[in-house]
Amino acid sequence: MLKTSHHSILLQTVGCLQFIDLTDRVAEIVEESGIRQGLVNVQTRHTTTAIVINEHEPLLLEDMKVMLNRLASPAFEYQHNNFAIRTVNLVPEEVGNGHAHCQALFLRASETLNLAHGRLQLGRWQRVFFIELDHARERTVSIMVMGQ
Amino acid sequence: MLKTSHHSILLQTVGCLQFIDLTDRVAEIVEESGIRQGLVNVQTRHTTTAIVINEHEPLLLEDMKVMLNRLASPAFEYQHNNFAIRTVNLVPEEVGNGHAHCQALFLRASETLNLAHGRLQLGRWQRVFFIELDHARERTVSIMVMGQ
Amino acid sequence: MLKTSHHSILLQTVGCLQFIDLTDRVAEIVEESGIRQGLVNVQTRHTTTAIVINEHEPLLLEDMKVMLNRLASPAFEYQHNNFAIRTVNLVPEEVGNGHAHCQALFLRASETLNLAHGRLQLGRWQRVFFIELDHARERTVSIMVMGQ
Repeated sequence: MLKTSHHSILLQTVGCLQFIDLTDRVAEIVEESGIRQGLVNVQTRHTTTAIVINEHEPLLLEDMKVMLNRLASPAFEYQHNNFAIRTVNLVPEEVGNGHAHCQALFLRASETLNLAHGRLQLGRWQRVFFIELDHARERTVSIMVMGQ
Repeated sequence: MLKTSHHSILLQTVGCLQFIDLTDRVAEIVEESGIRQGLVNVQTRHTTTAIVINEHEPLLLEDMKVMLNRLASPAFEYQHNNFAIRTVNLVPEEVGNGHAHCQALFLRASETLNLAHGRLQLGRWQRVFFIELDHARERTVSIMVMGQ
Repeated sequence: MLKTSHHSILLQTVGCLQFIDLTDRVAEIVEESGIRQGLVNVQTRHTTTAIVINEHEPLLLEDMKVMLNRLASPAFEYQHNNFAIRTVNLVPEEVGNGHAHCQALFLRASETLNLAHGRLQLGRWQRVFFIELDHARERTVSIMVMGQ
């Protein structure tokens, strides 16, 4: 019989390029769902954040920050940041975050994990991260567990 | 009880690096399916296109085009475009599109969205885009809604 | 009625930047499952590998290797490779693989494919690849077929 279980994880980020390891929280949500076989989809609800699976080694996280800022540097010029010409989606607290959107372009809004025999099919070094690409704020991650 | 609902969206693209916002069409397909809890997978059927979730702000789309062409420039040399040596997967209308395949490498063929309480769990600024990375042509996007 | 079918594919890779085409094996697993409508999630269990959908044209694979090594070159300096200062997740056989993790950052750990009318909804040129970003070793890919 099909079961679904949906949860939201609320996060308060502390700054740009913060990596938050969600693995234990996702595993708890899966365990509490009682679902033992199916799919687990981890999805961010924001456009300047990402869901990434990689190793949790602090120096590696520093390397990945360097890579992201090399690919879409905050120092590049982005038309999205040009408030002299931009007219769309402007909000009072708007700050230039074109680099964060462009970093997100090359990352993922969702990763789908397999759940089999009651266990998330993550390998030894795989951890599920939420990445804040913009400044500190409240964020929400949506988790759907679906299966039997 | 499990329900599935599959739809194809046919698109006629008009040129390279066109971003097509599929969000409203995906939401309609979900609504028509009658499924209120589950997963929605948006998948392209092509290798020189991508499915991306980001903000729909016209200047930002221009920034993303610049980023894609900086990462895998049409001006780079690609062996895939060297018809003097290439022998595999050649079709009569073949044009050099190595850059489009390499841009697709860093993007996604699918994004999976959570559906809970009858609503796609998209955040305020999240829009689902199909990106044409190659020249104008007919394209198909496959949408699967699965749940209850 | 909901059915799930989970399989692991064991791979012995032969070296860095090897592309292994999993498409036929995935299609067999789907066929054997008896499931005709639903989702198929292909997920790697490693942090220096990726699941990518693109065209299987040998020269293009060479282009993609060049792109990956340009983006996160093995010749860059990675703190993850600095065993003078690193203290976390060290194993006896540790070699410097910061570039492989950083390449994986811009690729995907999973791709989700739609299954409709008994057929994977892959387009004409779409093939599912596992990419080895690190040195030769044993790897596992997890495949979940879920539907009816």
